[in-house]
Formats: sequence, structure tokens, C-alpha cells
Amino acid sequence: MAAKRYLLTPGPTPVPPEVLAATAAPMIHHRGPDFKALYARAVDRLKQVCRTDNDVLLFTSSGTGGFESAVANLVSPGDAVLCVSHGEFGERWAALAGVYGADVRRLAYEWGEIPRAEDLARALADDPAGLVLLVHSETSTGVVSDVEALAAVACDAGALVVVDAVSSLGAVPLETDAWGIDVVVSGSQKALMAPPGLALATVSEPAWERCERTTSPRFYYDWRRYRRAVEAGTPFTPAVATVAGLDVALGLILEEGLETAFARHAALGRACREGAKAMGLELFSPDDESAAVVTAILTPDGANAKELVLSLRERFGITVAGGHGDMATRLFRIGHIGWFDVFDITTALAAVELVLSDMGAPIERGVAVTRALEAYAEAVAPA
Amino acid sequence: MAAKRYLLTPGPTPVPPEVLAATAAPMIHHRGPDFKALYARAVDRLKQVCRTDNDVLLFTSSGTGGFESAVANLVSPGDAVLCVSHGEFGERWAALAGVYGADVRRLAYEWGEIPRAEDLARALADDPAGLVLLVHSETSTGVVSDVEALAAVACDAGALVVVDAVSSLGAVPLETDAWGIDVVVSGSQKALMAPPGLALATVSEPAWERCERTTSPRFYYDWRRYRRAVEAGTPFTPAVATVAGLDVALGLILEEGLETAFARHAALGRACREGAKAMGLELFSPDDESAAVVTAILTPDGANAKELVLSLRERFGITVAGGHGDMATRLFRIGHIGWFDVFDITTALAAVELVLSDMGAPIERGVAVTRALEAYAEAVAPA
Repeated sequence: MAAKRYLLTPGPTPVPPEVLAATAAPMIHHRGPDFKALYARAVDRLKQVCRTDNDVLLFTSSGTGGFESAVANLVSPGDAVLCVSHGEFGERWAALAGVYGADVRRLAYEWGEIPRAEDLARALADDPAGLVLLVHSETSTGVVSDVEALAAVACDAGALVVVDAVSSLGAVPLETDAWGIDVVVSGSQKALMAPPGLALATVSEPAWERCERTTSPRFYYDWRRYRRAVEAGTPFTPAVATVAGLDVALGLILEEGLETAFARHAALGRACREGAKAMGLELFSPDDESAAVVTAILTPDGANAKELVLSLRERFGITVAGGHGDMATRLFRIGHIGWFDVFDITTALAAVELVLSDMGAPIERGVAVTRALEAYAEAVAPA
Repeated sequence: MAAKRYLLTPGPTPVPPEVLAATAAPMIHHRGPDFKALYARAVDRLKQVCRTDNDVLLFTSSGTGGFESAVANLVSPGDAVLCVSHGEFGERWAALAGVYGADVRRLAYEWGEIPRAEDLARALADDPAGLVLLVHSETSTGVVSDVEALAAVACDAGALVVVDAVSSLGAVPLETDAWGIDVVVSGSQKALMAPPGLALATVSEPAWERCERTTSPRFYYDWRRYRRAVEAGTPFTPAVATVAGLDVALGLILEEGLETAFARHAALGRACREGAKAMGLELFSPDDESAAVVTAILTPDGANAKELVLSLRERFGITVAGGHGDMATRLFRIGHIGWFDVFDITTALAAVELVLSDMGAPIERGVAVTRALEAYAEAVAPA
């Protein structure tokens, strides 16, 4: 095992040293004035990152717990719920809604396809649903959907809109209020550059109203407890250290500026795609400006992606992600979410090139890194 | 605000520096071999601390999420559930069971009372229930109940036994398997000496059988997902850094030895009670060897406990806990859970003595610290 490690997965993502240091400060009490101030600042920063004036609730939980909070607070048995599914996380929405007894309709695409607003409009016209569940960045495929257009169509049809923004928040534009999104769910461990362990949900007034009428049982994720506890900070003992880290990370993000961060992510995606293509690899992610979060790449015929992932780790200490399910032998994914610069991309590409060559795959040598650097430079400073 | 801080609450508790350092290591991927090995070791150590061969499930969550996991997986609407309630957390069990539609019966005591096994036997004989929810250490009052005797009675009545051991696990004896406890719920942030953010549940075979029959909706806390995911580690992205810290903390606990840790906690409780009595204060916790987790103390008439707590913090950087609800003006609580030695107790007592004196309370000066040290020495080396 190599001594130096590179975490290049789409989450958990690398955590900046000043964030790690904040998580390792001596423990403080969650009801004391220091933590209350810290918590209030972190929530205020989250509102800025989400671009919302709605309530932002913070849960000590994985992202999936945040998803469940949305379903448990908005879905009563029998409710019509439309899930737009184009990968692993769209399927998770559908499974969750099913567990809570929803009448689940799927607008389903092949994995890797980009959902279309006109399909959603037609689906809602044919078969109305009061709640639409969307995935912004489908981490399993690299597809970033056009949530602005999808949300507009859902709003027009009178539905509440819930968005899984776990891997997109802070990486690609998301305008919670301007786009009329009722609920955004995200997590600490992706573009927010903090360790895993916190999930968040933004809640609009119409979502609060629906929450009050929902009959599904919930306690830990009962949004109303978090709203009532605003004065106290949190209703239950939060992950104090992770909140401290998240607060510092959010400060870094806002200092860089959200627009700059979005441009950087778009350029990183561009660099990664151009480099991969230059060495002759086929993209699974759309070769499109929108794919700024994670790049999904197919291995050449005969080159097993599982073997590639293993070899990258064992030879070079580089961790990238594999593909889900049937795609496990053909797909690998390079994350570029959060604390990344172009040299993380060139490191990934250089190592992939080396390992695939050694596996006997027909790879163009010596061009990927240069092409990635060029593409990055073009993207950050367009002509 | 004083520069040096002392966290003397019953949770979150102070975290040893080697544990903090482990939480601040560079982030690793939760599906990689490093984390899988770390996770497996942490779970194995938890089994040793819980003294169980049952499955131990680890959730990224506050302790209350662990409680909800027990209720969501074991309670279907209409199920008869008996909650033994003698404080804040007994009431939380009852509220949770109620949310899931249980037919909730309470065996309720005054706060500060110790539940009696014979009462539980009678209650179950009069009105059988398939599930009994107990609190081991009632953090709101300092009472540690005799879970061995209570569980024996519940087992005899054919009920499954679930124990809230959030503030007791690692501080006072708990024999999950030997006492026939089906489910133990605990958290990372008390005697386990790690930051908050992880909850655990031990699950016996009869509890697994009941879980399979339970109809309540659950997804994130669905125990079956965690059992199926044993090979992968966790079904959802866990709080990687907190698991790393917990693993180190559990190593420290097992290195000290559980019996030594129990004796230390008993001696700390004894020292705290003797010191408080020596300065003329009245105990709210039972003056009993069992009260080893947190000491609840009444302020003298006319001395507002809220003012005491605030003054300790502002003048000396010392955080102790106040009382819940009606007790807020009369009660304060000194925690001695986890990474504590006798000088934490003498610090707390010395500062309480100083502040209460300055508040004009009739306090015996200059005896508490000496008496606490004597009591500690007697407790750790009985004649």
C-alpha cells in the first residue's frame, strides 16, 4: 500500500486541514453559549449556500436520513408521489416513498440519461401527484439534471418539489428560493468539504403546512421538533465536532464565493472529461458543461473496472469509485467535489493511464494530463 | 469568560486527545479496506464493552435516533408496550412508543426514585406487554436502576427487554447477554469518550424475529439493512471520522479494563456525593453506590441553580448541567462519565463552593475537596 493517499471519490471527499483541526478541538457542551453561536452561524452560512430564506434544519445523520426526514414529514399512506429516477438515488427516493405507503409513480430513465422537463410536465398532467422527488446530481452516473426546469414544471402542476442535492450543493448552481424548491436535502461530506455525519433539509412554508397534515410516524426526524428547538439550537445532542468543522468549511466556501466555486467545479469536470477522452476512453457521464460533480468513465473492452479501482488503490494509494450493480466491471468514477484543484484531476488521469496500459488496454499515452490542463485553463478563462 | 475550560456535564463528555487526533486524520472512503477493518474492529470492541455476542448495529445519529430505531423495528400499531419511567428519558421512551401507535403503559415513579423489580412484575402480571422499555442511567436525576433485576422480571413475563444505556455503557456494569437484555441502545458521547454522532443498538435473536414482523415504516433505521450490510460495513455513508475516534476510545477503555472503569466511576460518584454533603448540600441523586454516572445536587434555599450554572461558566469556564423542567432553579448536575479523574470532581466542588458562598448561601467552606479526596481513596482501596 502506498504511503501517500489520494481520496478522489464522489464522497466522502477530502477535508481541508483547517476543517479537520476544527473537528478536533476540545469538546464543548451543545447547550452552552459557544455552541449556540457556532450553530447559529453554521445555519446562517447554510442558508447562504442554499440561497434560501427558508428554515434550514440540521440532522446528525447520513444523507439518507435527511431523505427519510423529507418523506416521513411529507408523505402519508396513499399519497401520490412522483419520483424522477435516472440512477441509484432516484431509486432510493422511490424505495423510501414506498416504505411510507405512498402511491409511487416513477418517471424512469436509463441510467446516464438526463431527465426532461417536458416528460415531467406530461407525467404530471396524465397522473397528478402532490409531491415530486428529484435528484440534482445523480452521483451514480455523473448526470446533473436541470432542476430549475424540472421544478418550474412541477410548481406549475401544483406539486411540492423536493430535491436530493447531496452531491451538488456547493458544486453546481442551486437556487432554492428563486427556483421554487420546497425542500432541499444535502449532506456535509461532499462539496461542503466536512466529514460525513450531518444532513440538512431546507423547508418552505408550503412544506411546513403539508408536514403538519402528514400522519406518518416520526420522532427523531420530526421537522417540527427542530423548528421548535431553534432557540435551544437542536432538539437532540448534535454531532458537535462535525458542526464545528462544517462551520469552518462553509466559511471557506463563502470566502471563495459560490460563483467561483461553481466555475471551478465546471472546469474540473471539463478537464477530467477532456483528459479521459484524450487517452481514448469513453465517457458514461454526459460530455456536457453540467457534469461538474463526478465523471463516470467506461473502461475499454476487456479491462475490468474493478481491477482498475483495486490496482489504483494498491499501487498508488488512489481511491476512486467503481460503478453500481451491473456497471461494476465497466464503470469507474472520479469525483471532483469540494476541496479539489486541477492537479487532483491530473493525478487521477496519470494513474488511470498507467494502470490501464499495464492491464494491456489500448490507451493513448502521454496526452491526458496536458489536455486536462489545457481544458481547465480554457474553462476558467474562456476566450 | 475564563481561558481554560472544564466540561463536567453528563454528555457530551471530555474527549481524550488521542481520540480527538484520530477524528482529525485525513478522510478515507467508507467502502475502502482501511475503513472496513477499522469499522470491524470498532464493532468487535463494542461487543466486548456491551458484553454481548449479539449483533451490534452502529448508526450515524444522536442517541435518540438509536431509541427510535428500537421502537420503529419492534413496535407495530396497537402493540402493548410498558415503559418504566423515572425521569426525562423514561418519558422519551413513552413518547416514542406513542408516536408509533403503541398501546403505552407507564410504570411511573417520581423523578429521583429507583424503580423496583417487584412493581414491574406486578404491572406485567396485571396487564401483560410484549415489550418493556427501561432506562439504565436516568441522566436527568442521577438514578441508575437495577437493570439486572428489572430485566429478569420482564424475561420471566415473556417480554422483550430494551434498555437505554446511553449514559451508563462503560460507566456501570451492564451484562447484555448474561442479564437477558434483547436490545441495548447507547451513544458515542458519554462513557465511550468519543464525540457525539454515533448511536448503537445490540439486537438479540428474539428481537430480530420481532423486527421481521413489525409493520412500522422505517428505512434509515431499518435494522435489517444494517444486518445485510455487514460485509460492506454500513448501508449508508457513516460518520467516518467519529468511528475512527470511537475505535481509539474503545481501545483505551478495554486497555483500562471494564471492571477498573466501573470501580473508577463508582469512586468518582462517591467522591462527588461526599464532597457535596460535606459543604452542606442536599443530594437529589440517591446517596448510593449505584449513582456512579452523574450527581444531581440541590442548591440551598434561595440559591438559584440557574444562576450557579451561569456563574460557574462565566467566572471559571466550568460547564455543569442544570435541572430539567420544574427543577431548573433548584437542581444542578455534575457528570463524571468517561474521561474523568478525581481532580475533575475537586475542581467542580471547589468552584461550586466558591460561587454558592458568593451568592450568600450557607456553605461550609474548606472541607469539600478534602472530603472528596478521602472518599475517593477509600472507594478505590476499601479497607
